[in-house]
Amino acid sequence: MKYSLILIFSILTCLSTFAQKDKITLVIHGGAGTILKENMTPELEKAYHDKMQEALRKGYEILKNGGKSLDAVTEVIKILEDSPLFNAGKGAVFSADGKNELDASVMDGATLKAGSCASVMTVKNPITLARRIMENSPHVMLIGRGAEKFAQEQGLTIVPNEYFQTETRLKQLKKEKGEKIKEKNKKKDKDDSSLLDQMPQDKFGTVGCVALDEYGNIVAGTSTGGMSNKKWNRVGDSPIIGAGTYANNQTCGVSATGHGEYFIRAVVAYDISALMEYQGMSLEQAANRVVMEKLVKMGGEGGIVALDKNGNIAMPFNSPGMYRGYIKADGQAQTFIYK
Amino acid sequence: MKYSLILIFSILTCLSTFAQKDKITLVIHGGAGTILKENMTPELEKAYHDKMQEALRKGYEILKNGGKSLDAVTEVIKILEDSPLFNAGKGAVFSADGKNELDASVMDGATLKAGSCASVMTVKNPITLARRIMENSPHVMLIGRGAEKFAQEQGLTIVPNEYFQTETRLKQLKKEKGEKIKEKNKKKDKDDSSLLDQMPQDKFGTVGCVALDEYGNIVAGTSTGGMSNKKWNRVGDSPIIGAGTYANNQTCGVSATGHGEYFIRAVVAYDISALMEYQGMSLEQAANRVVMEKLVKMGGEGGIVALDKNGNIAMPFNSPGMYRGYIKADGQAQTFIYK
Repeated sequence: MKYSLILIFSILTCLSTFAQKDKITLVIHGGAGTILKENMTPELEKAYHDKMQEALRKGYEILKNGGKSLDAVTEVIKILEDSPLFNAGKGAVFSADGKNELDASVMDGATLKAGSCASVMTVKNPITLARRIMENSPHVMLIGRGAEKFAQEQGLTIVPNEYFQTETRLKQLKKEKGEKIKEKNKKKDKDDSSLLDQMPQDKFGTVGCVALDEYGNIVAGTSTGGMSNKKWNRVGDSPIIGAGTYANNQTCGVSATGHGEYFIRAVVAYDISALMEYQGMSLEQAANRVVMEKLVKMGGEGGIVALDKNGNIAMPFNSPGMYRGYIKADGQAQTFIYK
Repeated sequence: MKYSLILIFSILTCLSTFAQKDKITLVIHGGAGTILKENMTPELEKAYHDKMQEALRKGYEILKNGGKSLDAVTEVIKILEDSPLFNAGKGAVFSADGKNELDASVMDGATLKAGSCASVMTVKNPITLARRIMENSPHVMLIGRGAEKFAQEQGLTIVPNEYFQTETRLKQLKKEKGEKIKEKNKKKDKDDSSLLDQMPQDKFGTVGCVALDEYGNIVAGTSTGGMSNKKWNRVGDSPIIGAGTYANNQTCGVSATGHGEYFIRAVVAYDISALMEYQGMSLEQAANRVVMEKLVKMGGEGGIVALDKNGNIAMPFNSPGMYRGYIKADGQAQTFIYK
């Protein structure tokens, strides 16, 4: 009798773990904007899909092996930051004075704790800094030199600002400034410069990830180089909790990308959560209401990726394209670029 | 007949203008915290009431004479910034490295436009910088040196960082750092140093104002020196749209004060608006839900001042005290400090 009870209990525990494992979900974006098939080459298209697949599989491995959503989000975003294909980390857009200024944030839906950094120029992976701020400081947001000092104290990888720079983004800046591009000064990127030169050159771009682990915890993170040719240490929505990033185990996790000023004014990420909590909307309804109605009415171009506690995902965007993808318990990574 | 109609129309217009004029409202705060009557002297109490009365009357004059809520909020906050009694502008708390770093934001409920600055050290009135960012830049948030450069370009009053410093706040910093205060180095403030020395020395403090003008426009603004002894260019909720400041003509305007990290994580200012919009709560219900329930549960100390489109006000706080006050169409300024 005693052993039967233990057996039944074990089976039930096993089943409940399985049920939760069944819900593991990860959704990513690599920025929204004027991304049109007619402006894309097949090889560049493939490069985007490959990198997003790599990121999704990395996150999946973590979640599948009982890892936490916080680790999955951090590791996934690091892959996207390290790729020059996206406007975050290496390959970030230039500010008007020829520097790269990076912003990132992360939020933990279990504790509602958050970390955020803005205008850092020497931290290789800003998402790891955002996480350390959340975990190892009493603060939510650190900026500029102070944030960099904290990163150093935490032993994070520090790089010269030049690390982030790519020839392609420099050309983009010069074009925006109306400057002539001196071909003789062109330096070769380690990554295929001719491939990168085919990139759609949007002023904005971001990477983001939301994950749900088997413990039911939702974490959202976002990282960006901000707006190309930006002046005056402009900060967009990516490091703003509630605007570019929000997570709450009771509702959803959201990471946004687009014209940041509108996303701040519309408090986009939290608004999706509020519509679910206060009006009983589904994730899809709430995400569509904010991105396809409210933002469109305001004139705010961009999109979001999000997931809820049941592993439902939403990836609405009101721009021509958004690099995006998801992976669920079955391990089939799905990636998309256009509408 | 024709003249009768004109007369009736004129009377109606007059009445409707009167009706709107009747709703003009302005509400302010000067920070929440451990403000206890037993720790306050009568003369310091009077100084706080007098300064808040002065600010309220200034805002009232603007609104009463057909001025806009944006002007009222800016001018009121300038008065509070210029007073060493409050942690904003002159008299701001010190950061750990002995500097004053100021944050401010403003939002216009008619257009949902917003402006915000963080970690500025040379702009005499950060609220005016936030307003210029909203009005004269394509951005919402500028920080650090970049924000200061924009302020210079806009012709705002630039001061050395020492302008903001007071002996009282320096003593507070030294006390927090456990340093001995060298009395012989004491310099006299222009303002009464012995009076200021009686100030309750909270780590936090903020000033804020929300106004409703006769045109039905709600504007909210907030300004702060942040957290005393802060490190790593920490930024709190004051410059974060949705957290420390939010305004929407359809719902309400909110300015917050308190332990900023919690206010960011709880998206306090926008949450009050969301509860009104999505759950049909009154301003009072929504403000109480967020400040007296949600924040308390999280452990976030502080308060908010808010008003809705009908001129109803709310000033909940979960700390021992909050400097606060309001004025309505009747011109009777009301100010409070304790529970």
